[in-house]
Amino acid sequence: MNSTYFTRRTIRKYDERDIDDGLLERILTAGTRSSTTGNMQVYSIVITRDPEMKSKLAPAHFNQPMVTEAPVVLTFCADFNRFNKWCRQRDAEPGYDNFLSFMTAAIDALIVAQTVCNAAEEEGLGICYLGTATYNAGQIIDLLELPSGVVPVATVTMGWPAEVPEQPDRLPLDAVVHHETYRDFTPEMINDLYSEKEARKDSLQFIAENGKQTLAQVFTDVRYRKADNEHFSARYLEVIRKQGFAL
Amino acid sequence: MNSTYFTRRTIRKYDERDIDDGLLERILTAGTRSSTTGNMQVYSIVITRDPEMKSKLAPAHFNQPMVTEAPVVLTFCADFNRFNKWCRQRDAEPGYDNFLSFMTAAIDALIVAQTVCNAAEEEGLGICYLGTATYNAGQIIDLLELPSGVVPVATVTMGWPAEVPEQPDRLPLDAVVHHETYRDFTPEMINDLYSEKEARKDSLQFIAENGKQTLAQVFTDVRYRKADNEHFSARYLEVIRKQGFAL
Repeated sequence: MNSTYFTRRTIRKYDERDIDDGLLERILTAGTRSSTTGNMQVYSIVITRDPEMKSKLAPAHFNQPMVTEAPVVLTFCADFNRFNKWCRQRDAEPGYDNFLSFMTAAIDALIVAQTVCNAAEEEGLGICYLGTATYNAGQIIDLLELPSGVVPVATVTMGWPAEVPEQPDRLPLDAVVHHETYRDFTPEMINDLYSEKEARKDSLQFIAENGKQTLAQVFTDVRYRKADNEHFSARYLEVIRKQGFAL
Repeated sequence: MNSTYFTRRTIRKYDERDIDDGLLERILTAGTRSSTTGNMQVYSIVITRDPEMKSKLAPAHFNQPMVTEAPVVLTFCADFNRFNKWCRQRDAEPGYDNFLSFMTAAIDALIVAQTVCNAAEEEGLGICYLGTATYNAGQIIDLLELPSGVVPVATVTMGWPAEVPEQPDRLPLDAVVHHETYRDFTPEMINDLYSEKEARKDSLQFIAENGKQTLAQVFTDVRYRKADNEHFSARYLEVIRKQGFAL
């Protein structure tokens, strides 16, 4: 398989150069060939290229500079709107206003998103996923004029790399792979699997910069805090309901 | 980019030949290099290769023959268990028992799943996603012994193709891509976008076989019915809660 899978890293700084329309179309077409539940294609992709739209979109992504600096911003959405309209126009009553259908559509959207990213990276482009698509889905819906049945799930910025950051660490494969049944983790296993990550220079710097005792505390107390998670959980659930999926 | 993106199709019949351990490891390693929220890697992959385990797993997937016939079955899970254990062992109190965290972990799992599929297909392997992972998540949890914090999101069967089915149709790219804002669909647009799909020989056969008037009715009345969707919605929500994510 192509080496990009192993050499890739998230790219947050992009060249001025735009992405050619034909190339973007090929990348998106590659995405649409991916698996989709029952061949329903219950997703949509909103392309943001207009600088004014990028500026409006930026606050929803906490003004991360990639949104205004990348030539292309892609918002991948769970989307039953088109399918429901087709059903109603064909004397069929859609029953997709529920949580399972939201998940089905979200899965469709993410499968396409990741093929788009893999195809783009194989062409030398750089990408960055923005988790803020779920945090501030309501703002994104207003700005992109998403109708009922459509919920943002992931945003990806894309452009020609203007940096080659160090490749981030990953846990040993054993940490994420289980054979036949889940082998739950003993304290010793946790120590073993995280030891390399914790000993990294950037990890130690991270702890020091944030005035914490452990790397885990940087996650729980600074980066992904319980109060924020609960706040954004309530908001995302409200958005999912408001867009027509009962919970 | 490699042509597999465009020529691929889901494969449901597999050769007797097994997948070499080294190849499977490379494919999974490719997956782990994909984007992951905050480099937390909040997912896990359970590999099923044992024939007895496949037989036990089959009913959770409505006995679709791919589960017992594929050499490898992969269950991709949203997983905060390992990360939570690490936090607690490092004097950090995890706040990941909420819906946003479940979605974050599900997104991580699906991004890895799709890279694994792309990498496998590039090597000539065939894959099939089974949506039943969300339908019968509870059964899968019991069988694979998934602890609290772990929820199945997608199952993929994988093996060397023993068929070359016709490539399924896709809607025109315009049906799924929107520029700057969502261009909602008029009845004329729906007719245009679905006309080719509806005119296909296999679509007409599908309508006839199921005694329906329109292709959409095959979806709403036979394949993805409201009552089933609601039944499995309630069950999946219950599983998500039971595994420790408040809703």
